Amino acid sequence: MRKNIEYLFYPKTIAVVGASAKPGKVSNSFVKNLIEYGYKGKIFPVNISGESVFGLNTYRNITEIEDEVDMAAIIIPAKSVMEAVEECGKKGVKSVLVITSGFGEVGEAALEKQIVEIARKYQMPLLGPNIFGVIYTPESMNATFGPRDVLRGKISFATQSGALGAALISKTINEHIGLSCVASLGNKADVDDDDILEFFEQDKNTNVIVLYMEGIKDGRRFLQVAESIVPRLPIIVIKSGKSEEGARAAASHTGSLAGSDRIFEAAFRQVGILRAEGATEAFDWANILQGRPETLGEHTVIITNGGGAGVMAADACSKYSVHLLNDHEFLEGTFRKYIPSFGSTRNPIDITGQGGEETIRNVLHEALAQDNINAILLIYCEAATSNFDTFSRYVIDEMDKFTRIKPVIVCLIGGEKPKRAIDSLNQKGIPAYTDIERAASALGALYRWSANSKKIKEERTESFIFPEEEIRAIMEGAKREKRLQLLESEAKDILKLAGFRVPEFGLGRNLDECASIASSIEYPIVLKISSEHITHKSDIGGVKVGIKDRGELEQAYREIMRNVSSSYPDVTPRGMLVTRMVDKGIETILGVTHDPAFGPVLMFGLGGIYVEIMKDVVFRVAPLSDLDALDMITEIKASSVLYGARGGIKGDIPSLQESILRLGDFACDFPEIAELDINPLFIFEKGKGCTVVDARMTLAH
Amino acid sequence: MRKNIEYLFYPKTIAVVGASAKPGKVSNSFVKNLIEYGYKGKIFPVNISGESVFGLNTYRNITEIEDEVDMAAIIIPAKSVMEAVEECGKKGVKSVLVITSGFGEVGEAALEKQIVEIARKYQMPLLGPNIFGVIYTPESMNATFGPRDVLRGKISFATQSGALGAALISKTINEHIGLSCVASLGNKADVDDDDILEFFEQDKNTNVIVLYMEGIKDGRRFLQVAESIVPRLPIIVIKSGKSEEGARAAASHTGSLAGSDRIFEAAFRQVGILRAEGATEAFDWANILQGRPETLGEHTVIITNGGGAGVMAADACSKYSVHLLNDHEFLEGTFRKYIPSFGSTRNPIDITGQGGEETIRNVLHEALAQDNINAILLIYCEAATSNFDTFSRYVIDEMDKFTRIKPVIVCLIGGEKPKRAIDSLNQKGIPAYTDIERAASALGALYRWSANSKKIKEERTESFIFPEEEIRAIMEGAKREKRLQLLESEAKDILKLAGFRVPEFGLGRNLDECASIASSIEYPIVLKISSEHITHKSDIGGVKVGIKDRGELEQAYREIMRNVSSSYPDVTPRGMLVTRMVDKGIETILGVTHDPAFGPVLMFGLGGIYVEIMKDVVFRVAPLSDLDALDMITEIKASSVLYGARGGIKGDIPSLQESILRLGDFACDFPEIAELDINPLFIFEKGKGCTVVDARMTLAH
Repeated sequence: MRKNIEYLFYPKTIAVVGASAKPGKVSNSFVKNLIEYGYKGKIFPVNISGESVFGLNTYRNITEIEDEVDMAAIIIPAKSVMEAVEECGKKGVKSVLVITSGFGEVGEAALEKQIVEIARKYQMPLLGPNIFGVIYTPESMNATFGPRDVLRGKISFATQSGALGAALISKTINEHIGLSCVASLGNKADVDDDDILEFFEQDKNTNVIVLYMEGIKDGRRFLQVAESIVPRLPIIVIKSGKSEEGARAAASHTGSLAGSDRIFEAAFRQVGILRAEGATEAFDWANILQGRPETLGEHTVIITNGGGAGVMAADACSKYSVHLLNDHEFLEGTFRKYIPSFGSTRNPIDITGQGGEETIRNVLHEALAQDNINAILLIYCEAATSNFDTFSRYVIDEMDKFTRIKPVIVCLIGGEKPKRAIDSLNQKGIPAYTDIERAASALGALYRWSANSKKIKEERTESFIFPEEEIRAIMEGAKREKRLQLLESEAKDILKLAGFRVPEFGLGRNLDECASIASSIEYPIVLKISSEHITHKSDIGGVKVGIKDRGELEQAYREIMRNVSSSYPDVTPRGMLVTRMVDKGIETILGVTHDPAFGPVLMFGLGGIYVEIMKDVVFRVAPLSDLDALDMITEIKASSVLYGARGGIKGDIPSLQESILRLGDFACDFPEIAELDINPLFIFEKGKGCTVVDARMTLAH
Repeated sequence: MRKNIEYLFYPKTIAVVGASAKPGKVSNSFVKNLIEYGYKGKIFPVNISGESVFGLNTYRNITEIEDEVDMAAIIIPAKSVMEAVEECGKKGVKSVLVITSGFGEVGEAALEKQIVEIARKYQMPLLGPNIFGVIYTPESMNATFGPRDVLRGKISFATQSGALGAALISKTINEHIGLSCVASLGNKADVDDDDILEFFEQDKNTNVIVLYMEGIKDGRRFLQVAESIVPRLPIIVIKSGKSEEGARAAASHTGSLAGSDRIFEAAFRQVGILRAEGATEAFDWANILQGRPETLGEHTVIITNGGGAGVMAADACSKYSVHLLNDHEFLEGTFRKYIPSFGSTRNPIDITGQGGEETIRNVLHEALAQDNINAILLIYCEAATSNFDTFSRYVIDEMDKFTRIKPVIVCLIGGEKPKRAIDSLNQKGIPAYTDIERAASALGALYRWSANSKKIKEERTESFIFPEEEIRAIMEGAKREKRLQLLESEAKDILKLAGFRVPEFGLGRNLDECASIASSIEYPIVLKISSEHITHKSDIGGVKVGIKDRGELEQAYREIMRNVSSSYPDVTPRGMLVTRMVDKGIETILGVTHDPAFGPVLMFGLGGIYVEIMKDVVFRVAPLSDLDALDMITEIKASSVLYGARGGIKGDIPSLQESILRLGDFACDFPEIAELDINPLFIFEKGKGCTVVDARMTLAH
């Protein structure tokens, strides 16, 4: 964990630089929140005039404070912040909040950089600038100018956006959702998402993490940290800036880079982060995950008094991959005694409109008592005779009787009365909603986290070592010629050195050389024009396949030369690439791209129409675990093709998996590669491996 | 419209058969609702004891009533309902509600059928049984035992489920959503969704229709009615029971890919019905569609005080296909004067946290005044200084000033205060939400309906006539042989008669016959075993292609016979199908399946891996409009392949479209066809048409 970061959340003393006595001022609200929320440490207001703030002993300068200062909150005009940070450093302050805005987000990146440099010089973690502050409810510290009466709970929340974040905190209060730590991250000039994650991880009052982010600075480190946390703590991310419009708004909002959303999606999935569509969903999920059981079996039961509501709940469970118990004999035996003959026990358990609160209580009791029921979705429709006070009391009673060992999610459909019942259930920590979709989505999130946390990523079976010098020598050769685009022969030489199987080939500068290469690697061969100036070689007739002997070679050579000189009269080709023909395997594409947030990213898919027409490809951030590589293979929609669909061959999956892992390591070791396509990579039958047939490689500037 | 159905909603007199004086009884609540909601017509309670109900003149028998009875509500035990309906008929009652349950839904289908027969004998439309009643708010009629204080508005709602429906009405009251007609449909024994739709269409107080349905009886009629309504009135359907698709045993691709929900989805889309995921979404949509403008331009502007909220709103707009105005010069010129320099005018218009209610008012005013802004999404985050009473007042003022000509959707993020503001905005008919997703989804629905209503389905350019006798003769031939599965030759004969292009072929019973057919249709040919007992002909070596002359034919013939007798030693083939080889076109699949709700349904997709691996197919209910057929072609994901993607040919789209239309008409004219696959149908270059290469046809039992 980042040194001193704990002082941001557990400070024993807080200095408020710029604290004003004037009501309504941000700095005044800040001190007011600290006092009124019940902070037990010492507060030192600092302002030039020295006028007292809320009767506290006030200082003209932070250096005048006699005590140690664990955290200083700076709330003064942007132009004076640098000096204040310097003074904090001199005073030996442990950590700094820069509440003030007017830095990177308005184009003042240089000023922002300077304050960070000063903070780092003094080893003070700096949160912000452009934030509303931090909250730590277990110690009754509300160091913000935002909502005051934050409820106590086990959810820790960090937000890049201040206005939205503060509004969402108000929303948690209104919906009776309790929080533990809150951090406004603002411009993330120093303390970043990964630092905060590490802090949340060790905080004993954090049970679930929610992050709102628009962009990310060091995606790789973020993923590393997140991956180590997920098995123990669920991480829920709201990542906005998905759409073109959204990404554009992000760019003009803070200075952050919104990477391609598809890669964010893949990266989150890779480490088991749960991505929510919006804030309501995120806190719905967090709320149910907060009270998650240690282990969670897969059988859910829906209990309802409305047949239609039951059908809709079953639909929603199917949508969110919530598995319904379907042991009909057991269900009939367990529940029939409470249900009229025209009610259903087939899950949804439909007690019918005739079943009132008493029946709900009995059925819920039974469902809680049965070991092979693991989660309960309780959906109650308002009728003229419904008594929602009784309903809530019964549900709370039964839950308490069974010490809340199972997740029970309630959905109440109707008007004012059910709405009040939802409030009272939420207050008692029982997640309750007005909406079936929301209830099922929350239960689905619980199951997804449960699966993610169990997915043990074992140590890699093998890690690859590459002959760096030889490989870099080839790259340097191209760079000397001012080329970033490598020749196919260079790319293939590199991949061969990297341990991929590449069919024998040679570059012949003239017909004789080509012929001599051809006879050494044996016919049949492929002949292909070699020139960095010609990209679509097939299209202009620059490629001939299936050449069987010297005679055909001569003919093909002349034809290619004619085609090339008619399409590219000014180009002098380097010669021709002579390659051994390989049997046709399953065509796949394996590539590397460089993402601004996450660095080297791998792409995999089937070749040809699957990639070009159906765009059926998956991404992962490199390096990969064994499981990641296998996930890539099974996650594409056309995966069955690799397993022998339509009477095709069963591909060599272990070899493909090894190629993916190898390319992942390779991409990490050679970050100078901007883009790489192995297209196609042929996959042969089980035991026969795979072969690079063509490759394109581009270096970064 | 169904005769007398208007008496269900506009009755001047209502008899309540079984009306009880005992509070808490369903029949008592029913009369109470009628009185308390302010029904202005006459109410005639009927009960055996003759005891007065709420002081009304009460009758022992319906026949004793002197006045005409427009509607009778029957609320007595199921076993007595039949007699009561008969008496209603004798009395000359115009329409009947059967509130009582205990019919089809508990297995008493025969009893249900009997009451319907009686009602029909007397031409009384019968709503129910198993319902909570009907409501018509413009005439202050609440003829239900459900929620009383239903708000007046322009949304008409019909629900199959009683418990859920009643709870949803309570929900509309709580969310300030006004309704016009409400109908509980229950078992739909007589009056069905389509009858209700026709009634809603002509009701001058209905502006939007919401239906909750689990199943449908006559899907084709429902679609016809819906299609005629959609251009004028939006129809929103909540169709549950998605997950209970039930695997169908089907030999054809078309049959196996057609889950019932997929066909519902396709059918709804075909006629422009908006399908909502759940009740919240449905009423959100209805609420905004209720106040829709006559015309709606495509440019939306997002106004917000929270950058993060703006980014999320832009994401949500992109998700729901809401187009954001991106004329940056205009936006800057219009809005910059109200916004600080670090705020954004790039849409989202970000007034920043410093902009308060006054700024919102100015920006909203400007956006309402500008002609090239057509819809506004206003997102306001709660901050310490926010005043939501002022906010609501300003928004309502501005909206009224501009006579509500543009849709303005409000989303308020925060705690208690914004929640109250949402209430007051909704009361004033301005849709307001706590959630960005919901707001954007509602706006998206508005745009989708606007597009659907404009999609004019012209009269069909051509309608196909088929030689019915000749076609049926072939089918009869197979049936005489106790076959439902036609031979390929029979299927092709039928398709040829139906006007499809089928390469010349003949069935040869021996080598000589095959040779003579081959020379008459000209080599090269395809030879294929013909037997109803052999399904996967290629797999067992029963097919040879590219046969160039008599010699090759002999060899192929013998080889096929050998292969067949080794795989099927007990089968005596009918002979071999000799078919002219055709050039390869773009492989497509065109099929028919028979849906229990909708009857003949068409499927289209590309052949081979597109259908088998990617399941990239679309469905439409037959018959189709010209536009439907074109939609099928462009809706598949791999559509670009038909338009020359990857250097392929540009397919003959008009000819493909004609084939789809032809097959649709054919499927309607021959409902005895249970399943049909034309697989492949080859599409040739523009102007060169398409050809049936293989076909399978199965008749219904």
